[in-house]
Amino acid sequence: MAADNALKYPIIAVNEAETKHFFDNRYGTGQSTLDGITRATNILWAGRRVVVGGYGWCGRGVASRARGMGAHVIVTEVNAVRALEAVMDGFTVMTGLEAAKVGEVFITVTGGLHTISGDHMAVMSDGAIIANSGHFNVEIDIPALEAMAVSHREVKPYVEEYTTTDGRRLYLLGEGRLINLAAAEGHPSAVMDMSFANQALSVEYLVKNHGNMDPGVYVVPVDTDQEVGRLKLASMGIAIDSLTANQQRYQESWEEGT
Amino acid sequence: MAADNALKYPIIAVNEAETKHFFDNRYGTGQSTLDGITRATNILWAGRRVVVGGYGWCGRGVASRARGMGAHVIVTEVNAVRALEAVMDGFTVMTGLEAAKVGEVFITVTGGLHTISGDHMAVMSDGAIIANSGHFNVEIDIPALEAMAVSHREVKPYVEEYTTTDGRRLYLLGEGRLINLAAAEGHPSAVMDMSFANQALSVEYLVKNHGNMDPGVYVVPVDTDQEVGRLKLASMGIAIDSLTANQQRYQESWEEGT
Amino acid sequence: MAADNALKYPIIAVNEAETKHFFDNRYGTGQSTLDGITRATNILWAGRRVVVGGYGWCGRGVASRARGMGAHVIVTEVNAVRALEAVMDGFTVMTGLEAAKVGEVFITVTGGLHTISGDHMAVMSDGAIIANSGHFNVEIDIPALEAMAVSHREVKPYVEEYTTTDGRRLYLLGEGRLINLAAAEGHPSAVMDMSFANQALSVEYLVKNHGNMDPGVYVVPVDTDQEVGRLKLASMGIAIDSLTANQQRYQESWEEGT
Amino acid sequence: MAADNALKYPIIAVNEAETKHFFDNRYGTGQSTLDGITRATNILWAGRRVVVGGYGWCGRGVASRARGMGAHVIVTEVNAVRALEAVMDGFTVMTGLEAAKVGEVFITVTGGLHTISGDHMAVMSDGAIIANSGHFNVEIDIPALEAMAVSHREVKPYVEEYTTTDGRRLYLLGEGRLINLAAAEGHPSAVMDMSFANQALSVEYLVKNHGNMDPGVYVVPVDTDQEVGRLKLASMGIAIDSLTANQQRYQESWEEGT
Repeated sequence: MAADNALKYPIIAVNEAETKHFFDNRYGTGQSTLDGITRATNILWAGRRVVVGGYGWCGRGVASRARGMGAHVIVTEVNAVRALEAVMDGFTVMTGLEAAKVGEVFITVTGGLHTISGDHMAVMSDGAIIANSGHFNVEIDIPALEAMAVSHREVKPYVEEYTTTDGRRLYLLGEGRLINLAAAEGHPSAVMDMSFANQALSVEYLVKNHGNMDPGVYVVPVDTDQEVGRLKLASMGIAIDSLTANQQRYQESWEEGT
Repeated sequence: MAADNALKYPIIAVNEAETKHFFDNRYGTGQSTLDGITRATNILWAGRRVVVGGYGWCGRGVASRARGMGAHVIVTEVNAVRALEAVMDGFTVMTGLEAAKVGEVFITVTGGLHTISGDHMAVMSDGAIIANSGHFNVEIDIPALEAMAVSHREVKPYVEEYTTTDGRRLYLLGEGRLINLAAAEGHPSAVMDMSFANQALSVEYLVKNHGNMDPGVYVVPVDTDQEVGRLKLASMGIAIDSLTANQQRYQESWEEGT
Repeated sequence: MAADNALKYPIIAVNEAETKHFFDNRYGTGQSTLDGITRATNILWAGRRVVVGGYGWCGRGVASRARGMGAHVIVTEVNAVRALEAVMDGFTVMTGLEAAKVGEVFITVTGGLHTISGDHMAVMSDGAIIANSGHFNVEIDIPALEAMAVSHREVKPYVEEYTTTDGRRLYLLGEGRLINLAAAEGHPSAVMDMSFANQALSVEYLVKNHGNMDPGVYVVPVDTDQEVGRLKLASMGIAIDSLTANQQRYQESWEEGT
Repeated sequence: MAADNALKYPIIAVNEAETKHFFDNRYGTGQSTLDGITRATNILWAGRRVVVGGYGWCGRGVASRARGMGAHVIVTEVNAVRALEAVMDGFTVMTGLEAAKVGEVFITVTGGLHTISGDHMAVMSDGAIIANSGHFNVEIDIPALEAMAVSHREVKPYVEEYTTTDGRRLYLLGEGRLINLAAAEGHPSAVMDMSFANQALSVEYLVKNHGNMDPGVYVVPVDTDQEVGRLKLASMGIAIDSLTANQQRYQESWEEGT
């Protein structure tokens, strides 16, 4: 909207705060996505081939937690650097089409369109489970799924079975809506607290400073981010060091060292 | 130097390239730091309390690989957000002084000054091992160690034993120089290839464009970064997807989705 | 009962089958215990100090999966070899009393009596969560908890809050009954299938052979165990090798090799 | 030898002691095998496809540590239960022949014959690295490798390059001898101490009791095992609990509990 000059007032992109997206998107989405799928299906994660579409902050969280439960995680990506990170982090990386042939559970976390396409669903195995934990329900091409189905029923809450013309059964969870909100309770409060703190402090900042702010997208100030982090650590009973004056000076200098 | 107007020509900060610091600093330093300490000492990592000073890209790599070998990893940090990430990633976080009391192996990767200070060494246990894998040898306050020692000998190559006035023996590895270079062979070629590719492509860019560049610090162009990533993936036999035109359009829009 | 001559008929100890206790106890209990606690409390596991009482097959599963979700896991044990395994596997080991002082979530999986005792609960922090996933509800000394409480209420299903005389609130989950059955759906079918297969094949064996069997405890035949494993692998589409005649002969010999 | 009545004196199978094979075979072999291969080749483990032949105690150690360094681990097995454990532990399982086609590093830890056969080497990729960390050098069919090679040279210490008739280069490490002994320093002392303690205590036991012992294979007494474990924990400054009399009684009873 900013690029299209469609913004009519200043906005702070709270999601860009490190204490928001490092934590909420990674640890919150990671845990609650698995939680939602477990509650909907009661599958065993250990030994299961799980395809994670997207290796952004949410994708890292989901991939990491799925591996933590014993799953065999396959990552798909369109960004070469992220794909390479996934490989080096120990995950298998392949194209969406190849992943579709071998995966058992599919989770989209790209924020994009048709991360799971009709072409993918055409080659999935009987019994494949498909869920979205990214953004809108368009991450899965649901119309394509409906078009290839000869019948459709709810087998239990949040689990819809689509039977294809070639007799395979594909299971769409939570109508393709965010599965952690649809089938579980969303993020734990212990991670939302930081997101809400950023929102509250950002609103306070806007109230105080909006007079001097043009319409546009602003970032959460670094100081706010660090302050939220410090408060969170303190609430967990964890103390950390501060730089001494000497250390601060050294860090800013370029003349010392051999 | 740029802030001090001391730069006399344009510089490209290759270390800022994602295909450099995500990989070289994390996976390269992570593995080779452990390798250096293993070759110097042949310690068993499993069950050992390892203190990692700093949770930047190098610190993440070292902490992750040490845990991968079964170590109990403690992280120290001065940045609240990074400290919190370390906690959420499953590592114990405490102050340097507390860590000094319980640690068995200490690894500095801050790039800073005196990450291991005299105060820390004063409370370390008999047998503590101290190594640096960050930047200069000042990350460990070696003069403070020398000042508290009554004797000093090399027990094997790269392992110096300092006996303190209270009879404890502290082991400094590789004279506090980068332990992966001192006692092992540095980063594997499979990670340096990307760093060198960035350097070569950056030099080419400077040769072609230096006429239009003022003295200052420039970043590696995103396209170069992605190209290095793509080439690396191809060399590993890994294919990834590209966005379709529709997906690209969706990603740039703000009007779709419910 | 066998030791007391109290058995009146032959029994096959299905739980001793490798395809039972390696899988059901470890992967089943591991996942479903976390699932039960998550459903009851919606806590974030990442960064949380979780005390696992017992490092048998169930304890290994719970400890492994809790770490997989980012928790900081502390193990308590009475068996020195198991305690040492837990240490080498990367877990912190300490006495129950020390663990009680620092833990945030407590899970008993010993099959024993009062793994969480009154002495432990006397030093737990405000907000501590206590659950059992071992055997009977006596793993937690609930009468001791009741005796130290001035009030008691259900804050949500499966979560009972006990307020102590010194003002701390301790949360007992599922009345100390198996939390994976109380608050979740028990083990996934993908792990129970092997347990049930062992039970069915053992019953078949008893029907066929009981005439020749004295009262006593029998193990599941190794062949049955391997057969259940082979069938399970086949159902997952996984093929493995068999020894060639040469390899078999080599394995049984003691004369070859230098 | 016992089965063939070829034993002429009593033997204590020290390797069967839990404080031996749980630790030496798993944590010792796990770490030192990677160490040996790293010293010989300086490969980056992150992102590399590593095939581990055998999922016994040594295989578990190697697989676990390779994953801990970021490798993508494939396990081959002939035992269905162990294969299934590997799957549930998060490893890919396939036949040796399939693994040979996709692996980059091959490590045998079966104690058997020709775990890597000529058929396997015939389909390996150019650049494949082959090492043994199990028992004798016959785990790799070296004569078959020599037969398919048109030339052969040492490219660096412990690394022999075999060029096949179809132009592929296969790298055999340490002549197929135990790679942790050939190219590294063997197990760390922190794990051998327990193995040696078992050996010393077993010799003492034999000296005291041989008069009453027939030729045959004996196990290390459980008490010795627990004592070694307790001493080791104490040396690490770790305290654990003991069962109370009540707890002991409960454990042995079968009448309590609901």
